[in-house]
Amino acid sequence: MGRYDLEYPKEATNTVKRLNDRGVYALESIHRIVNSCQILHVSFNTPSQEFPAILPMIGQMGSFERPSADLGDPLDLYLHGYVSSRIMNLGRAGSEGEEAKGMPVCVAASHVDGLVLAISSFSHSYNYRSAVLFGHATLVTDEAEKMYAMELITDSVVPDRWRHTRLPPTNAELQSTGILKVRIASGSAKVRAGQAHDDKSDMENEPVRDSVWTGVLPIHQTMSEPVASPYNRVDVPGYISDFANEFNGDNKQQSLDAAKDQ
Amino acid sequence: MGRYDLEYPKEATNTVKRLNDRGVYALESIHRIVNSCQILHVSFNTPSQEFPAILPMIGQMGSFERPSADLGDPLDLYLHGYVSSRIMNLGRAGSEGEEAKGMPVCVAASHVDGLVLAISSFSHSYNYRSAVLFGHATLVTDEAEKMYAMELITDSVVPDRWRHTRLPPTNAELQSTGILKVRIASGSAKVRAGQAHDDKSDMENEPVRDSVWTGVLPIHQTMSEPVASPYNRVDVPGYISDFANEFNGDNKQQSLDAAKDQ
Repeated sequence: MGRYDLEYPKEATNTVKRLNDRGVYALESIHRIVNSCQILHVSFNTPSQEFPAILPMIGQMGSFERPSADLGDPLDLYLHGYVSSRIMNLGRAGSEGEEAKGMPVCVAASHVDGLVLAISSFSHSYNYRSAVLFGHATLVTDEAEKMYAMELITDSVVPDRWRHTRLPPTNAELQSTGILKVRIASGSAKVRAGQAHDDKSDMENEPVRDSVWTGVLPIHQTMSEPVASPYNRVDVPGYISDFANEFNGDNKQQSLDAAKDQ
Repeated sequence: MGRYDLEYPKEATNTVKRLNDRGVYALESIHRIVNSCQILHVSFNTPSQEFPAILPMIGQMGSFERPSADLGDPLDLYLHGYVSSRIMNLGRAGSEGEEAKGMPVCVAASHVDGLVLAISSFSHSYNYRSAVLFGHATLVTDEAEKMYAMELITDSVVPDRWRHTRLPPTNAELQSTGILKVRIASGSAKVRAGQAHDDKSDMENEPVRDSVWTGVLPIHQTMSEPVASPYNRVDVPGYISDFANEFNGDNKQQSLDAAKDQ
């Protein structure tokens, strides 16, 4: 399309310093890592303790204002949770008042693509894709936006699942589920792909070259055959078996591609 | 052995409130989740920004004072990182001074064992095992403890790898690698296993029972065939192929067991 690729500006918060050639700032790359991650780790501070807290949550980037936005566009992060949980209460408190811009959060999304074994343990590494986003979380109160986010998040678990479930949601369901919206302030990713590397002194050390196996053990997430519930009456539908096949094929290919020498 | 199982005491910091029947406080269960997790998410605060930060790190629980300690004993968490990285500098600063007990951190370890699909999207869930630890991180300065931690962490990536690499470490390697030790203040885990469940009204809704597939899509991490580096000269050794087979078998079984109705 010839359009430039948007990037998060490099600032003190998000700049990758260590091994900075692995740093990635393109919105599309970062958002893709987040949206393909089944568990996001969300950290936030609470008034009552010295430790930050981390919650594993399910979430997805999207745009309620412009649902057709693609991964390379500025997006919000929607997180799903129980309405009276601590993080929802903090998000609610952060949404109130004149100057409320929300609760500061950091969100991490990480994939392991392989274990990289070198001659020296100190040259061992992982192939990985890892993103962090910083932003301000508020509780979604608009009913239409809440429905948009719930459909977005459900379909992120299994594509097309939402319209195959019992609809519409009941009032009790809508009232018991909270959605946090994170307005992104900054973000970055760090990606490592490729083969093992060793220092010159180890490469020239014939005895260790002849005795230490070096290479990559590719790792990916796999889905086994679906296990029906005791009350299920339906054959596994095509949208689920297609998803399982693509999930397995794509994940395996990603880990094998990462294991190639680059 | 008849010995009681140690638990982290329930306090404000670590108590699981939402769906509290899923809460786990036993040291052994929590430490097992942490030690089998390939990436730990470590959050900490920095003086210069309002957001907590999260770093994906490699780490392992152990006891330098008593290396024979088992998973159910009080243990420290050792984290591996580059010596001049931000978190290492903060850990160093937190170790200095008379009253220094270290930098407050929260560490999360999460495994996804399956996607749980119910009639209502609001009854969807994951099968998962998730642990959080709270503690104070300091930089390890004792050389023997540093070596202990490096071997512990290397062998957590591939069992028995350390003694099959080039040894001993060089001075440059030792100086460029930092180890953070987290003294655990508190921790808990949350575990969900089992089949889909739906509310009574959906269970009695014949048309949706006849149309919505319900059950679990089991998910586990798989290792593909090892990919040798361009400079490798050695056949894949038994300790690596055995590890890959066990990794695949154990992970798959875990996800299938979790998918059973409980």
